[in-house]
Amino acid sequence: MDHRILQTTRELIEEVGYPALTVDQVATRAGVGKAAIYRRYASKAEMAFVATMHDRQPPPSVDTGSLHGDLLALARTFHARMAAPAARQLAPALISELAVNPVLDARFQDTFLAAEQATFAEIIERAVARGELAGTVDPAMAHLLLLGCLASALYVLCLPVDDAVVTDLVTAAAAGITALAERDHGVSGAPAEPS
Amino acid sequence: MDHRILQTTRELIEEVGYPALTVDQVATRAGVGKAAIYRRYASKAEMAFVATMHDRQPPPSVDTGSLHGDLLALARTFHARMAAPAARQLAPALISELAVNPVLDARFQDTFLAAEQATFAEIIERAVARGELAGTVDPAMAHLLLLGCLASALYVLCLPVDDAVVTDLVTAAAAGITALAERDHGVSGAPAEPS
Repeated sequence: MDHRILQTTRELIEEVGYPALTVDQVATRAGVGKAAIYRRYASKAEMAFVATMHDRQPPPSVDTGSLHGDLLALARTFHARMAAPAARQLAPALISELAVNPVLDARFQDTFLAAEQATFAEIIERAVARGELAGTVDPAMAHLLLLGCLASALYVLCLPVDDAVVTDLVTAAAAGITALAERDHGVSGAPAEPS
Repeated sequence: MDHRILQTTRELIEEVGYPALTVDQVATRAGVGKAAIYRRYASKAEMAFVATMHDRQPPPSVDTGSLHGDLLALARTFHARMAAPAARQLAPALISELAVNPVLDARFQDTFLAAEQATFAEIIERAVARGELAGTVDPAMAHLLLLGCLASALYVLCLPVDDAVVTDLVTAAAAGITALAERDHGVSGAPAEPS
């Protein structure tokens, strides 16, 4: 039933746009009760966000053997979701809704953002364990440097974003995370040699 | 008259909010004709953007003697503008308007974004001349890494942003720009020694 609700939501966002979307339409076309939808999602915005961008869970972070590789795998997964037509439809409307709806914003922060930041915490922990980073870095800052920047490129600055741009963002984010770790934990003036 | 129009626009955005703002209100309260406003600004959105965030011109980029210093000066100026109450009011609404209004988006790209990117081009040029960067970097990418990220923190992710966060973003952006220059122009495996 989850799958049917989310699939129907994506279809309707592409057909009628996010502003015109209603939970009633989704319930009717998916053949489920509204109560079933509201048991799963607190609001239309949350249902739409899960259907388009978030996929309920952040992607499991795969150990690729390097900080750059781990960030690239994550960025490619998110780019595929965030650049899809339904996500592009939803994002600007969701951004303005979050700005004026503190309840939705709190839910967004506590649920989705926290889960994404937890994935960055795992990636950072592995990089510290490998000796790639001089110490830990705030996962919220790392998240901002990569996925925040990607969201800005797609939804605020409306730049064309292809895999080369995603790779540039990953290279820059990995260097930024490394520099912050070095500043906070490193021996000043003695950057670690790459092994 | 420019100053009066922009000041009145800021006041009205704070009083009634951006969605309810009209060019008529601004004309009446500022004591100017609507034609005078439309000679200066193509739309309500543009007038509001100039009044809150852009200040007509990007800040002159000051040569502070280092890439980090130049970026920090720029980021602090933009942070002060972008975090002001009227700018926070406007931004989410402007983001959704840009997504559905290609004329406004083109104007935004060609005027404001291009001017900001030109400032980054100057900063990068100076850093290359100083020997801080191995070669030039796409100014649009540098702009995205610093101001795109800041916009995302303020308007998309709705994070608290103080001067420490701005400084972290600058440190990360400087490292990211340096890494991209090194990747594209540097001698592989031989990072430049800090002088």
